[in-house]
Amino acid sequence: MSEKIYVGVDVGGTTVKLGICNSDGTLLQTYEGPTEVSKGPDAILHNIAQYVKLIVEESSYEWSQVAGVGIGIAGFLDIPNGIIKNSPNLNLNNIDLKGFLEKELNTIIKVNNDANVAALGEAWAGAGRGIANCVMYTLGTGVGGGIIIDGKIVEGFQSVAGELGHMAIVPDLEAIQCGCGKMGCLETVSSATGIIRMAKEAVARGDRTSLIEVDHIMAKDVLDAAKAGDEVATRIVNRAAYYLGRSMSMMSVILNPEYYIIGGGVAKAGDFLFDQINEVFEKYTQEASKEGVKIVPAVLGNNAGVVGAAGLILRG
Amino acid sequence: MSEKIYVGVDVGGTTVKLGICNSDGTLLQTYEGPTEVSKGPDAILHNIAQYVKLIVEESSYEWSQVAGVGIGIAGFLDIPNGIIKNSPNLNLNNIDLKGFLEKELNTIIKVNNDANVAALGEAWAGAGRGIANCVMYTLGTGVGGGIIIDGKIVEGFQSVAGELGHMAIVPDLEAIQCGCGKMGCLETVSSATGIIRMAKEAVARGDRTSLIEVDHIMAKDVLDAAKAGDEVATRIVNRAAYYLGRSMSMMSVILNPEYYIIGGGVAKAGDFLFDQINEVFEKYTQEASKEGVKIVPAVLGNNAGVVGAAGLILRG
Repeated sequence: MSEKIYVGVDVGGTTVKLGICNSDGTLLQTYEGPTEVSKGPDAILHNIAQYVKLIVEESSYEWSQVAGVGIGIAGFLDIPNGIIKNSPNLNLNNIDLKGFLEKELNTIIKVNNDANVAALGEAWAGAGRGIANCVMYTLGTGVGGGIIIDGKIVEGFQSVAGELGHMAIVPDLEAIQCGCGKMGCLETVSSATGIIRMAKEAVARGDRTSLIEVDHIMAKDVLDAAKAGDEVATRIVNRAAYYLGRSMSMMSVILNPEYYIIGGGVAKAGDFLFDQINEVFEKYTQEASKEGVKIVPAVLGNNAGVVGAAGLILRG
Repeated sequence: MSEKIYVGVDVGGTTVKLGICNSDGTLLQTYEGPTEVSKGPDAILHNIAQYVKLIVEESSYEWSQVAGVGIGIAGFLDIPNGIIKNSPNLNLNNIDLKGFLEKELNTIIKVNNDANVAALGEAWAGAGRGIANCVMYTLGTGVGGGIIIDGKIVEGFQSVAGELGHMAIVPDLEAIQCGCGKMGCLETVSSATGIIRMAKEAVARGDRTSLIEVDHIMAKDVLDAAKAGDEVATRIVNRAAYYLGRSMSMMSVILNPEYYIIGGGVAKAGDFLFDQINEVFEKYTQEASKEGVKIVPAVLGNNAGVVGAAGLILRG
């Protein structure tokens, strides 16, 4: 058995998820263990290395088949050198993750940020399989992004490309401040957090909406209310979709990707959200830039991270 | 003499410009001849092939040293296949330029659009020499763009990436319709045409400006008046600079390039324009995305086209 395998690691604040993929990006085996952030940097690094050894050991594959280990992690990175400059979630600063794991595992190590890695997972083996140029939006607490050109992640000069949630897409007059400090970022309106904020504002204003009966409004409540015909909720979801569509129009004249892939919790709203986004994209995008372009839902769900991390070895 | 040489061809509506470059992008020899658009497609294609043969023949290099011929041309292209889908300037439709020249010249042929090629020229051997990730804006009649990532042109799914002049950056309330049919494109405010339009509107409104004495207002008149302290002209130039700066902020969260290179006639305004752009870019761009980023003037002038076209062979 000489088939090469690719190990992907998705390092989260609570759990480290791992997967073994073949060269097609098919997930052959998974594993997960606690990150143990409270025990500090050494413990986290040790855990990652241990889990990689364990997933391979527990599989039917030999260590000699491992072509490399890819890691996806949230935070500011120096991607080419695999250094974590600052990961607030994990309380890691200036950690040479690539260097540590190369020594510990004696194989090729690639490190990239979680949003880029999810985009690569979808582009390699998910909704964008076979598509060279994709842009992914992950609509969660924030709006994450990842750009794939000619099959590879666009990293940027300082490893901060693909921060699509921080496109200043909301006009100044309507803009509110983002967590990043700047005004009018996409994630102020199109993230779960943005949707919840707009819903709470509507309730506080006394707008006639069924959301007034919800104790702790979640994005799903707003999406469900909109689907059920609540006008206020519909307006909120349409606003989230509008700025996503506008940002894709902008992206299409810049990069002219073939697919936009939308993942994350908010994307579960399905056609209701996608139809709106499509309508806005159609309206605002130049003919030449939108010809043949598709806006599609992500398909890998929580596996996008481990699959994409594994993909870093072939596509990093 | 076995040094490889790279021939670049910049096909314009009036003139075909040619250059021979070495592998550093140094321009060793130039040539130019009439395009002869009025004689039709066959004549244009024949001329291009003839001029390539002539520039090599008239040089101290042998045809055997030619590593390839790159062509920059305005219009809608199928870049990978080197097909001109539609070039209104040259009245060319569905022309297999690459196929024709391969047969005629028996060497590697690469075709790309003029704005992309100018960006590659500057990135390869001009203001961005040694810089892997650059975005170029050419401020002329329109606003042209080209994006270089990891040293290569971003072409896009339908060969229409880098259309930076059509970023819908002007908010709807202030937006006017662009020649492309969409509203609020960057080139409605930051091109020479946009600057002239705003100046004419100011004069028509009766604004107090020295421009009222100019018969046929050109962009240079507005830039000169602004430099001389004319308030109305200053406001116009600042507006052009403002949206350029905002578009670069947007670009920085998307692609995080290291250099923005600005060329074209309007860029000749120099520090007056660049200072304004820098101020806006500073204000609106996130720390991480702007760290170490430079906004620089193009240096190759009209040679960017031939140099970049030659560069297609190494970087295309």
